Amino acid sequence: MRILGIDPGLARVGYGVIDVGCPGAPGEQRMLDCGIIRTDPGTSDGVRMVEIARDLRLLLRQWRPDLAVVEKFFFYRSSTTISVVQARGVVMMTLARFGVPVAEFPPMQIKQALTGSGHAQKDEVLDAVMRELNLEVPPRPDDAADALAAALTGWFQR
Amino acid sequence: MRILGIDPGLARVGYGVIDVGCPGAPGEQRMLDCGIIRTDPGTSDGVRMVEIARDLRLLLRQWRPDLAVVEKFFFYRSSTTISVVQARGVVMMTLARFGVPVAEFPPMQIKQALTGSGHAQKDEVLDAVMRELNLEVPPRPDDAADALAAALTGWFQR
Repeated sequence: MRILGIDPGLARVGYGVIDVGCPGAPGEQRMLDCGIIRTDPGTSDGVRMVEIARDLRLLLRQWRPDLAVVEKFFFYRSSTTISVVQARGVVMMTLARFGVPVAEFPPMQIKQALTGSGHAQKDEVLDAVMRELNLEVPPRPDDAADALAAALTGWFQR
Repeated sequence: MRILGIDPGLARVGYGVIDVGCPGAPGEQRMLDCGIIRTDPGTSDGVRMVEIARDLRLLLRQWRPDLAVVEKFFFYRSSTTISVVQARGVVMMTLARFGVPVAEFPPMQIKQALTGSGHAQKDEVLDAVMRELNLEVPPRPDDAADALAAALTGWFQR
């Protein structure tokens, strides 16, 4: 099955696409694509969200994922602003429009799934992503690595 | 000019469309339409946001507003949830896609603009909306009245 992981944001939306085998059949998973949708900081939030919806549609048409995994937000995180939550809404709406099932996991659960600890450091999560996907070079930027971590969590949880 | 006021939400999106004259020429403003977009509570947030985007597109094609006014959100309001902010993102994105300029006012500023007090009660705001638009019957439900209040604020502030 094919899983699209998404790390939502307004300035940058991280994404990662993986193909995975059945649970319990390790060694078959591989990365197909990863990167970020970067929006124009010189425009309004509305226009930036139009860019996100457009680029996400292109990704969905290209990769046709069976599942999308989107990082879950909470308001108590200082980095969670109105703008970022609004942009996440556009991501969720676009996924629904394409009929893609969505799983949502909070950041702690993603860390837990990849490293065994909900309090793991970024480097430990990155190492786990590289090991699981047999990557020789770390996926960059961070948002893309986080998206791959989300995608892998979607696989582990099935 | 034509102004579309929007009271964003996930379960219900209030809207109100008014035509107004130039500032300083009272008595010319009138209501063209008001109501709510009601989404299906039995579906996912994503699907509900697809419904909001679809119905809002229909309103924009029908009324072609020169300006949209959207109530501004703050996280300290207990009623402001992740779901509601996400749905607001879909509204803002849809307005940007249609190239509609957007003004945003916090609820207190809307109350202030209509009644002279930022702490006015709902009834006072409703009375002001009816007076300004020469309505004999109160616009219902509340979300539609709030959207008309937002639209009028957009006019007053120009």
